[in-house]
Amino acid sequence: MVLKVCSSLGGSVLPSQPALGYGHSPWISVWLKELEVPRLGHSDVHVKMLAAPINPADINMIQGTYAILAPLPAVAGNEGVGRVLEVGPGVTALRPGDWVIPADAGLGTWRTQAVFPEASLLQVPSDIPLLCAATLSVNPCTAYRMLADFESLAPGDSVIQNAANSGVGQAVIQIAKATGIRTINVVRDRPDLPKLVERLKALGADHVITEDMLRKPEMKEIFKSIPKPRLALNCVGGKSTTEMLRHLQPKGTMVTYGGMAKQPVTVPVSAFIFRDVRLRGFWMTQWKKDHAHDKESLSSMMDTLCQLVQRGQLGAPACTTVPLEDFKEALVASTQPFTSSKQVLLL
Amino acid sequence: MVLKVCSSLGGSVLPSQPALGYGHSPWISVWLKELEVPRLGHSDVHVKMLAAPINPADINMIQGTYAILAPLPAVAGNEGVGRVLEVGPGVTALRPGDWVIPADAGLGTWRTQAVFPEASLLQVPSDIPLLCAATLSVNPCTAYRMLADFESLAPGDSVIQNAANSGVGQAVIQIAKATGIRTINVVRDRPDLPKLVERLKALGADHVITEDMLRKPEMKEIFKSIPKPRLALNCVGGKSTTEMLRHLQPKGTMVTYGGMAKQPVTVPVSAFIFRDVRLRGFWMTQWKKDHAHDKESLSSMMDTLCQLVQRGQLGAPACTTVPLEDFKEALVASTQPFTSSKQVLLL
Repeated sequence: MVLKVCSSLGGSVLPSQPALGYGHSPWISVWLKELEVPRLGHSDVHVKMLAAPINPADINMIQGTYAILAPLPAVAGNEGVGRVLEVGPGVTALRPGDWVIPADAGLGTWRTQAVFPEASLLQVPSDIPLLCAATLSVNPCTAYRMLADFESLAPGDSVIQNAANSGVGQAVIQIAKATGIRTINVVRDRPDLPKLVERLKALGADHVITEDMLRKPEMKEIFKSIPKPRLALNCVGGKSTTEMLRHLQPKGTMVTYGGMAKQPVTVPVSAFIFRDVRLRGFWMTQWKKDHAHDKESLSSMMDTLCQLVQRGQLGAPACTTVPLEDFKEALVASTQPFTSSKQVLLL
Repeated sequence: MVLKVCSSLGGSVLPSQPALGYGHSPWISVWLKELEVPRLGHSDVHVKMLAAPINPADINMIQGTYAILAPLPAVAGNEGVGRVLEVGPGVTALRPGDWVIPADAGLGTWRTQAVFPEASLLQVPSDIPLLCAATLSVNPCTAYRMLADFESLAPGDSVIQNAANSGVGQAVIQIAKATGIRTINVVRDRPDLPKLVERLKALGADHVITEDMLRKPEMKEIFKSIPKPRLALNCVGGKSTTEMLRHLQPKGTMVTYGGMAKQPVTVPVSAFIFRDVRLRGFWMTQWKKDHAHDKESLSSMMDTLCQLVQRGQLGAPACTTVPLEDFKEALVASTQPFTSSKQVLLL
């Protein structure tokens, strides 16, 4: 990772609220800095941020390798939850005490306080667990949309996914379980595999297999009890994805939403012609942009997800909470391989 | 090619009509044989075959590498045109003198006469050129469906395709031209390139480029006068396909219908996630199977194509006609690289 972390940067430091900024000067760096909290405008909301996770997309944005980038220097962080402290006179739907999450990427959530336009926030119930709220707006939404928008799945149908231990993967397992859809979950082999299998099964996974298993005749055993998947969710790329695709039903869809292996998706021509598989992509940020004027879709999704949380059917992924001042260790920890625990900054 | 051609095979030869049979005994072989013409059944049609092309799929079926295979030994050939000689008492829509083409793959068209069930035949106007009729049921239908079924294209929109010189490619150029859609046509570099460019432009191609051009900044020039394509048609695979995909509009569709390079389709993960490209496949045989009870779609397509032929907007590809007895030379010629001319057996 080309990411240097430094504690502070020259320039006037205002006696106000700390934030994790980043910029290129002279290398990519992240620093903790006091930022002035601006005056509350007519339609603005003054928010005390409570918790914000460190996601791979945050790191990529800091590295400058993501598809959307902020003008630098910027406050980092795309996800998180805050409590409303005060609202401007034109704010209609939010009141002090409400919990809010970002409506879109790029808000800059790694800070203790901020003033945001009302339109950039979504309300969530304040009785759900803090870590659920802090991690709700990217991964569970991605999982929800991928399960809903590409194939019309009915209870009893199955879904296959790789990177099943990722934040999205865990949300897929839980949302699928709550709706009666079976999941075949592919993970990389690792020293503590049995523990991981147990953890994913506890979340509701029907089958947990390693990438090697995808090539083996034992796969047939799985399809004696459940139908072949009509939907495959791909966050890896490379050989493992090609192997996963072989198990998709004819006319089924594979949705790519990540590329952890940093390798392209490779598909035999025959899969397109003779099995009519359909390959699509998904990016939550684009979905939100495309549905900017369709508040109903957004709020219906958030309502469903919050209800799943309230019923105990959707929990936060395994998290390690870290005080803001320990951000350096958290950033380093978030980029380690086989990290099963998401770093969440407490603000 | 693992294809042996022999002149005849032992066994009883009935004094009837010649056909090109094939089987595995002991190697894959094709032989000319007299076959008895069966008695005309209630719903049968006695057909004098007139002409039948040699398509790559025919060769693959003979080689046993195609997705549908006939029980061996079989009569080869999937496409062609014949004239009705006689009809059974239960035949309603066909009369002697009518021209017919196969409704589906696997009919066995490389023969002089045959008795077919009425349901296995489609009528075409008998005033269209023989070679058009003989080559109508696979390539022009494939081109028509791919232009119609994946993106709703309007006049002024553009399509990019590789293997633009193939039978399908030439039909795409002509059908697109007739409907006001611009085409960007990718061909392999070759000694007689200027002649090929001229020929495709005469068919209506807007741009003809080599595979190398796809990587060059000069591509930008093309997109000053026409919009980026919303549809890409892929018959190649490998690097050239990945390069073609780069020029597709966001949310555009690439349809794979062949794999001439014998290499898979390789797509960067970012194309799925950040450009939302959609990858599909098409196989005319499957479409016909899926629409077996939807005669209206089939006849509406055939009507449109025949009208284009009658108006001079859709011609046969470059063909070399060969008498049936010279089938060996025709089979060999059909598997040569850079063949710009389709071998058609005259029956």
